[in-house]
Amino acid sequence: MMTVKTIEWTGSAARLIDQTLLPGKTKYLVIRDDKAMWEAIKMLRVRGAPAIGVAAGYGVCLAVLKAKPKTIAALKKAALKSSAYLATSRPTAVNLFWALKRMDSVLDLFAPDLPVSDAIDMLIAEAQSIQEEDRQTCELIGQHGAPLLKGVKGVLTHCNAGALATAGPGTALAVIYEAAKSAKFTVYADETRPLLQGARLTSWELQQAGIDTRLICDNMAGMVMQRGLVQAVIVGADRIAANGDAANKIGTMPLSIVASYYKVPFYVAAPLSTFDPSLKSGAEIPIEERGAEEITSFGGTNVAPKGTPVFAPAFDVAPAKLIAGIVTEVGVLRAPYTKSIKEAFRKR
Amino acid sequence: MMTVKTIEWTGSAARLIDQTLLPGKTKYLVIRDDKAMWEAIKMLRVRGAPAIGVAAGYGVCLAVLKAKPKTIAALKKAALKSSAYLATSRPTAVNLFWALKRMDSVLDLFAPDLPVSDAIDMLIAEAQSIQEEDRQTCELIGQHGAPLLKGVKGVLTHCNAGALATAGPGTALAVIYEAAKSAKFTVYADETRPLLQGARLTSWELQQAGIDTRLICDNMAGMVMQRGLVQAVIVGADRIAANGDAANKIGTMPLSIVASYYKVPFYVAAPLSTFDPSLKSGAEIPIEERGAEEITSFGGTNVAPKGTPVFAPAFDVAPAKLIAGIVTEVGVLRAPYTKSIKEAFRKR
Repeated sequence: MMTVKTIEWTGSAARLIDQTLLPGKTKYLVIRDDKAMWEAIKMLRVRGAPAIGVAAGYGVCLAVLKAKPKTIAALKKAALKSSAYLATSRPTAVNLFWALKRMDSVLDLFAPDLPVSDAIDMLIAEAQSIQEEDRQTCELIGQHGAPLLKGVKGVLTHCNAGALATAGPGTALAVIYEAAKSAKFTVYADETRPLLQGARLTSWELQQAGIDTRLICDNMAGMVMQRGLVQAVIVGADRIAANGDAANKIGTMPLSIVASYYKVPFYVAAPLSTFDPSLKSGAEIPIEERGAEEITSFGGTNVAPKGTPVFAPAFDVAPAKLIAGIVTEVGVLRAPYTKSIKEAFRKR
Repeated sequence: MMTVKTIEWTGSAARLIDQTLLPGKTKYLVIRDDKAMWEAIKMLRVRGAPAIGVAAGYGVCLAVLKAKPKTIAALKKAALKSSAYLATSRPTAVNLFWALKRMDSVLDLFAPDLPVSDAIDMLIAEAQSIQEEDRQTCELIGQHGAPLLKGVKGVLTHCNAGALATAGPGTALAVIYEAAKSAKFTVYADETRPLLQGARLTSWELQQAGIDTRLICDNMAGMVMQRGLVQAVIVGADRIAANGDAANKIGTMPLSIVASYYKVPFYVAAPLSTFDPSLKSGAEIPIEERGAEEITSFGGTNVAPKGTPVFAPAFDVAPAKLIAGIVTEVGVLRAPYTKSIKEAFRKR
């Protein structure tokens, strides 16, 4: 497992590694207010559904610290305003909204005469709890998921659902790290266009962990499966509907279709905070679309004629019927998901 | 249709546009011997199955011109040596071998006392015939295929099977150009990693032709189909086996699987020179693998940690059972392909 600190609370600020510069440059940003945190989330300096939940929690703390409220009423106002603002940074990953709701609900505990400094401490403690719980959740996901990879020669993953995406060893990659403790196999990492999280982050994480890695272009995954090089696909998720439909980085849905065609089991790994039981199916999950320049240029080089129009969805939805199992902190959920997801929430 | 000259014979050399520099830079290369032609094919300066057939034909002419043979025997020796050498430039596209075989068979027509200059003229004439026939073939493919796109709102294509890949308006793009003469629709162009022929070449060609274009990353094609934005997929091919299995740029096979899942008809457009009836199925088609740096860096920027191992197949094979039709110069072939391909060769 890698030792890089994706996000940390310094006592008065949040320190995070700028993931847009990896692996070429290891630069830590000190985030001192919620505006800077909003920008960091929007620009994917911090990314991965669980990690942006943690980041948003600290964003609310920073807003309150900066507002220097004199009263609990003023503190609540500043916190709620910041929470609503941070919720606009990215639309698809539900962990963001889940973490902000947790921060909001702490406010309800504050009596009007609670010393403001105590209230601030409680808010920071809540954000730190979100982070610590995520770390533990990742470990549990790894332990529950590792048996799924028993005997594989290879595993394929998409985007980055690793240490950089969470406060722990990751979701999909936690499963891989845990399985790799007692077995040798090769991980095929989709580069994940347009922002190349697979090339830049996953292949870096895996190599740092000493795991045999092959980087491929997204469109080579079909060949990897056809040749029998992998016996499982495992990915993270940004939002999972009540029926098990799972939104994740663009390219995940076609991957699930191709895996089904080649009879390779397709797994999703995600904490319960990624589930959104209020949505009946994936059709209701809002899909973020991003700017043209992420496709038309790279590293300052234009790769398409200037002004070329694009279609740039950032996520798609793997249909529940193509998912062999969803690895959570309470165990591996199996179809029918409507039932197993309900049960998982009861168990929590 | 665009006006760029992909490849031209100048009388003593071959002039071709360096496609690795497009669209940023329009640079023409003057190729004066078969070594330079081998390099141009290998490095994809000239690419596209039909275009590399044409290029190889001229390569043999250049070798013979350079050898300055005094006798027909010496000329034949130089031509056969060059032909065998050029055949090693790229392994998958069969048009290369087909064109070289045509050049070789011209040699059989030479009587020992034929003046050498006449023999050279005949070789050049053969290479020019290959080019002119390809131009006509492209036009016919366009005419036969256009009715398949009747009433579509959108079409999706992969890689570049256009004017830059052939001596005419292309194969898949010939169909699109012909259909666009009498209808308006949007073409979704896969960027086509790793070498971005879709971003650099197809989106450029289509925009020059005034066709409404959306550039997408390869992994967004699933979403385009799921949203009903296209009613057809059409691609070129590099080699088609006797049973209709079609090798084409990496990413084509998963595209055919996803198209089948969303019930979008998947068409292949290719001249008969792309068929290899000596191969029973796609499993026998040799698949070129290319260097790591095409994946690990882009535009001079490293996108993955140094030394990251890759798996880099350049082609894959769409299974015949997922192909709704193969558009050729003699008409649209339909399943069962073993039968319709045999009939097409009889008609030729």
